Amino acid sequence: MTDCQGAESPMELYEKLTAQGDEVRALKTAKAEKAEVDAAVQLLLKLKVDYKKVTGQDYKAGCPPSENSVIPDNGPAADGADDEDTVDPWNVSTTNAKGVDYDKLIVRFGSSKVDQELVDRIEKVSGQRPHHFLRRGIFFSHRDMHQVLDAYEKQKSFYLYTGRGPSSEAMHVGHLIPFIFTKWLQDVFDIPLVIQLTDDEKYLWKDLTLEECHRFAVENAKDIIACGFDVNKTFIFSDLGYMGACPEFYRNVVKVQKHVTFNQVKGIFGFTDSDCIGKISFPAIQAAPSFSNSFPQIFGSRKDIQCLIPCAIDQDPYFRMTRDVAPRIGYPKPALLHSTFFPALQGAQTKMSASDANSSIFLTDTPKQIKNKINKHAFSGGKDTVEEHRKYGGNPDVDVSFMYLTFFLEDDEQLDKIKQDYASGALLTGELKKILIETLQPMIAKHQERRKQVTDEMVQQFMTPRPLNFNL
Amino acid sequence: MTDCQGAESPMELYEKLTAQGDEVRALKTAKAEKAEVDAAVQLLLKLKVDYKKVTGQDYKAGCPPSENSVIPDNGPAADGADDEDTVDPWNVSTTNAKGVDYDKLIVRFGSSKVDQELVDRIEKVSGQRPHHFLRRGIFFSHRDMHQVLDAYEKQKSFYLYTGRGPSSEAMHVGHLIPFIFTKWLQDVFDIPLVIQLTDDEKYLWKDLTLEECHRFAVENAKDIIACGFDVNKTFIFSDLGYMGACPEFYRNVVKVQKHVTFNQVKGIFGFTDSDCIGKISFPAIQAAPSFSNSFPQIFGSRKDIQCLIPCAIDQDPYFRMTRDVAPRIGYPKPALLHSTFFPALQGAQTKMSASDANSSIFLTDTPKQIKNKINKHAFSGGKDTVEEHRKYGGNPDVDVSFMYLTFFLEDDEQLDKIKQDYASGALLTGELKKILIETLQPMIAKHQERRKQVTDEMVQQFMTPRPLNFNL
Repeated sequence: MTDCQGAESPMELYEKLTAQGDEVRALKTAKAEKAEVDAAVQLLLKLKVDYKKVTGQDYKAGCPPSENSVIPDNGPAADGADDEDTVDPWNVSTTNAKGVDYDKLIVRFGSSKVDQELVDRIEKVSGQRPHHFLRRGIFFSHRDMHQVLDAYEKQKSFYLYTGRGPSSEAMHVGHLIPFIFTKWLQDVFDIPLVIQLTDDEKYLWKDLTLEECHRFAVENAKDIIACGFDVNKTFIFSDLGYMGACPEFYRNVVKVQKHVTFNQVKGIFGFTDSDCIGKISFPAIQAAPSFSNSFPQIFGSRKDIQCLIPCAIDQDPYFRMTRDVAPRIGYPKPALLHSTFFPALQGAQTKMSASDANSSIFLTDTPKQIKNKINKHAFSGGKDTVEEHRKYGGNPDVDVSFMYLTFFLEDDEQLDKIKQDYASGALLTGELKKILIETLQPMIAKHQERRKQVTDEMVQQFMTPRPLNFNL
Repeated sequence: MTDCQGAESPMELYEKLTAQGDEVRALKTAKAEKAEVDAAVQLLLKLKVDYKKVTGQDYKAGCPPSENSVIPDNGPAADGADDEDTVDPWNVSTTNAKGVDYDKLIVRFGSSKVDQELVDRIEKVSGQRPHHFLRRGIFFSHRDMHQVLDAYEKQKSFYLYTGRGPSSEAMHVGHLIPFIFTKWLQDVFDIPLVIQLTDDEKYLWKDLTLEECHRFAVENAKDIIACGFDVNKTFIFSDLGYMGACPEFYRNVVKVQKHVTFNQVKGIFGFTDSDCIGKISFPAIQAAPSFSNSFPQIFGSRKDIQCLIPCAIDQDPYFRMTRDVAPRIGYPKPALLHSTFFPALQGAQTKMSASDANSSIFLTDTPKQIKNKINKHAFSGGKDTVEEHRKYGGNPDVDVSFMYLTFFLEDDEQLDKIKQDYASGALLTGELKKILIETLQPMIAKHQERRKQVTDEMVQQFMTPRPLNFNL
């Protein structure tokens, strides 16, 4: 029965699978004999495996196959099992084309959902319309945001801390998400910001020299500065530079290191006995900027200023550890705002790779490269043919071009209309891609223009430990 | 047979044991029946246990009991088994009253003996009479000293690195040993010296605050400076200060941390999964000063200047690790000169404790305290009564006063005569103690005089990263 499946199209397989699913349900409802039900289930599973082989995706009832039916390089396991998503600072993977199941992640990580009530409250306290990353659930999870807002309402300020691991010179649009959002937070709350570049971490984890990692840190700083940060309110530092410039920072690193055991980092990060001692102790270095007295030039000796960390959810393990340690060393726990992952052009199953030029739009891409990459590589939720697309409609939930627009198209109404038109089949994949291309081309061009204006002296200024324009 | 042993004196037990030993040997020689031999051995072992209970020492044939027959607090196990000595950076213990078996340690650690040939060579190359610590086997072990001397003969210089863990304000005379010897090495070879105060280590290991540990480091620096170091040739640093002042130092720490796994530090230092990640990564911080480019202010960017580390043998595990890593990160292996341990007043079985005021002579002791401590606490190799002492003689090998004199009495002939007179019984314990008291009182007084002259400014000067008076 299955020896001819090689010739079947994804859509034919999809229809067969749907029918077989109905069959299994019917047999179960009729309380058919076990052997008969088992045989039907076996066939169903076999068809699912075939479907996945052909389309690279799990079969989902009610969700016909999309046009880009290729198995991604880093594809999911072929058994179609409902695997739990993998999310840690070094691996993010899921078998679901829509990406990681973020509601499950909130439960698993023990964080809280950014619900409408919180979004409304941020609007009320800041007096500004919430950023579309908040409105659209891109920053979807938090820890202690209400506490931060409570304090802010009582004139108790806080500061922002975010960062980046400089694993290469090349940054892509996804890397901008935390910085775009952090800049918005800084603008609406008018608070100090520290940005950590973990060049030491990249040296420990990658096959790179210290000099390379530090150079990447400085190059990445230029892209970060190009996001428009105010030098009077922002301190950017690399670990390899700042550790040797500020004894107070090292003191906090050692404090954390005294209060975390190998057992704990083994549990949190999955380290093993074969890992180098640098990796094992590194989490303390990412923890230390969560404490205000790591920056005496900004906060003096004050250790009570709360920290808010906007970051992608994969960084949460570091800060779960930090929040566990903080009260034991007399510091407030940092609050967090977690973002979803920015999908690779090839689909939302995996995090992007800065080493694969086709996996995303890079900040150095030309308008032509942007156009070609999106047209060639952006995974589509559309159907195989125009006819099918018009008939069944596209699936915006798995369409990468649409996902990118949720990040970068600011107009809510326009985005909504695109979604409806795509789902109904009124908007074709090529047309959707064109909208994305025309959104990204000027955005990247503007970024490149601003980056050109970032001089070495400016980087030097941002990266020099110094007071910021705040009275804390 | 043994129910009356409670009333027996150490000397009676000693004589009984000697007789029983003879008996066992006689039976074995006569090839007596197994049961008979076994019974005799059982009695011998029982007597040994009794002997230890009463004297606090293992029975040793030919070595009658000494007068201070008390069990030390931190005494050896009562089974009298020939335990291997424990020697690591946190524990030094032995069941032998003469102290650790250093020849065994050389074999176990894989180092080389400081033999007469090496002592002669040091004399030839330096053009100076070898320090009595070398002549008397106090610096008894080394790694690569011949290589250091080969290079020195070809005008290739080296630098010295030693250190101290500042666990309290109080330093005792034993703490001076590496510094006295290092000063001598610096004087005869005319080379730069760096001294590390591991205040971060003490914070990680002890129940102390960072502030306390750093204060101890500064206080200890005063005692070290009082040894007479030249500020133009010597850099003293605390980890908590220098880590935040020199990015090159942190770079070398991270380099070492990348090349050492948890498995390795587990094997070398006995760390477990319950140890904090600070302890686990600390060995890299003690390793880093072995590489000349950790001190750019002194050596510029040169990374090829060999390091020679004079230290007590218990620190060797750190440098075995360092020597293993060095070639893998492109640096020369440090050479070492290892000293024996300075015995506690109570005996050579354990290392001294800075927290027990009676365990040694402290650098702050008054002449009267010195006299009282030695008279009251210095473990004696003499006999119970003057009559017995005159008859059997004293045992200088276990006599702490005599051991101290080997460290501090510079005149070889005088020391030899004291040894002979004590062993023959011509010199009584009180007389031996008097010689030690009269040696230490002026030595400590002079140290206190010099320490008084060490101002905060001088400490500041020694501890400021700066060039030294060398052209390297």
